[in-house]
Amino acid sequence: MKDFAYFNGRLTGLDDMMIPMNDRAVYFGDGVYEVVYVRNGRFFALEDHLDRFFSSLRLLEIRPPMEREVLNGLLGELIGKLDRGMEDTYLYFHCTRGTAPRSHAFPDASVPPNLLIYAHAFPNMLNKEFRLITAEDRRFGYCNIKSLNLIPNVLATQRAVERGADECAFVRGNSVMECSHSGLSILAKGSIVTTPLSEWILPSITRKHLLKVGRGLGIPVEERPYTVDELMGADEVIVTASLTLLSRVHEIDRQPVGGKDLALFRKIDDAYMEWFHAETKV
Amino acid sequence: MKDFAYFNGRLTGLDDMMIPMNDRAVYFGDGVYEVVYVRNGRFFALEDHLDRFFSSLRLLEIRPPMEREVLNGLLGELIGKLDRGMEDTYLYFHCTRGTAPRSHAFPDASVPPNLLIYAHAFPNMLNKEFRLITAEDRRFGYCNIKSLNLIPNVLATQRAVERGADECAFVRGNSVMECSHSGLSILAKGSIVTTPLSEWILPSITRKHLLKVGRGLGIPVEERPYTVDELMGADEVIVTASLTLLSRVHEIDRQPVGGKDLALFRKIDDAYMEWFHAETKV
Repeated sequence: MKDFAYFNGRLTGLDDMMIPMNDRAVYFGDGVYEVVYVRNGRFFALEDHLDRFFSSLRLLEIRPPMEREVLNGLLGELIGKLDRGMEDTYLYFHCTRGTAPRSHAFPDASVPPNLLIYAHAFPNMLNKEFRLITAEDRRFGYCNIKSLNLIPNVLATQRAVERGADECAFVRGNSVMECSHSGLSILAKGSIVTTPLSEWILPSITRKHLLKVGRGLGIPVEERPYTVDELMGADEVIVTASLTLLSRVHEIDRQPVGGKDLALFRKIDDAYMEWFHAETKV
Repeated sequence: MKDFAYFNGRLTGLDDMMIPMNDRAVYFGDGVYEVVYVRNGRFFALEDHLDRFFSSLRLLEIRPPMEREVLNGLLGELIGKLDRGMEDTYLYFHCTRGTAPRSHAFPDASVPPNLLIYAHAFPNMLNKEFRLITAEDRRFGYCNIKSLNLIPNVLATQRAVERGADECAFVRGNSVMECSHSGLSILAKGSIVTTPLSEWILPSITRKHLLKVGRGLGIPVEERPYTVDELMGADEVIVTASLTLLSRVHEIDRQPVGGKDLALFRKIDDAYMEWFHAETKV
């Protein structure tokens, strides 16, 4: 297979899958999701994604679709059906609060959750440098849940694309939060600086990896609020995301940024990529 | 027919409709909706709902699925297929940004929007008095769009149901906003007081009607922020929603409220119901 879609045990091609109108994703966005990098048929950081998936489910009070070990096995089985020679693929999976007549309150406890999974090849963007725009963050206070309520993220990404940029950095007043579908950190005076976790940002897995790799290299890490001025004047600006890993930013709102500590960025990125390649080699 | 579901021209029973997995409702909640009261086969306030529907589409930059007059005709045609003798039915319709492979940015302009419509009988709740709970409002800054991003509304409604209440009033600090799927106003010293419209509340149609009916009766209207103390001490508290119209509130967070100007509430409610019955009589 080149791609697939899975819904509650049914398997089809990616463009053929139909789901019930009454799936609570459709009326409420009432579900949570994950996206995992798959290279050479091997998952990168699947355990981290499963950790966050089960955390998101718990925060949204959605019953897991199956035991973690069973889900882990199912994802591996499905990825195993893909044709060989597909270097870069991503795996998407989400779980919603099930299928029930539309009503805001949770359906009866007997209604099982719905599990949707698909995989698709994508173009490797690992060496791309990023252009960003900034926009006021008007998202809700549930950003720590990787949910299907993504309208602000859709609008911010669209604004970025329209302006020839790759991502949009959300700011609240003068504080930098994260990007519309990525994390955001800076290098400043030899340290990694990144916004602390709260209900206002997603616990980005690649952000977590960045801090882990940085600490492993003996680089100081500061999890603290930082300002737009600090962002614009940073030695380097780094976007973190599961499909692009660490991306250096060279422009924000049409102004050049970073480029002042390329050596430190390269040191961190090299260590990260060494780990990534070790995890995903054939 | 007892009920129906419509999706881009296909017609099925309510529980049978399947939609594409790649509908942008599914991944992003990327669409807007309306719910209309239908009594005796007649719409109540359909033009107001169409106004808001097209406003929501414009705010979210989604192309209308068809001309307003064509949609109006289609909704009438579909409701005409329902069995006679069904007094209280609601019509739901939503429009999403179409079907496309998952990507945050808008799909190509050639991708048509998706139109989903269904109708379902519901139990008349026009004389029910409401119990409320309150909860901190953690919704996003796009509440003026009637969108499919409803997780905070789902969670708030669920909390209300668990506590034996009918609705949840959202408050921001000490300011009262609205309910999780209804508007909220108070009567105080002979006036109707209601939170002014902004990106933090939905332009409730029944709120608009309440103000119109009130002004028609010569009752002063104050569109201004009001506090939780004003809510708890109000002469009357009124929930406004398209399927329940005006509902008097008798309890909030297990404390009795209102009941101090029943005559004024009745005067307004009688005028409202007279209009409603005139619009929906056979």
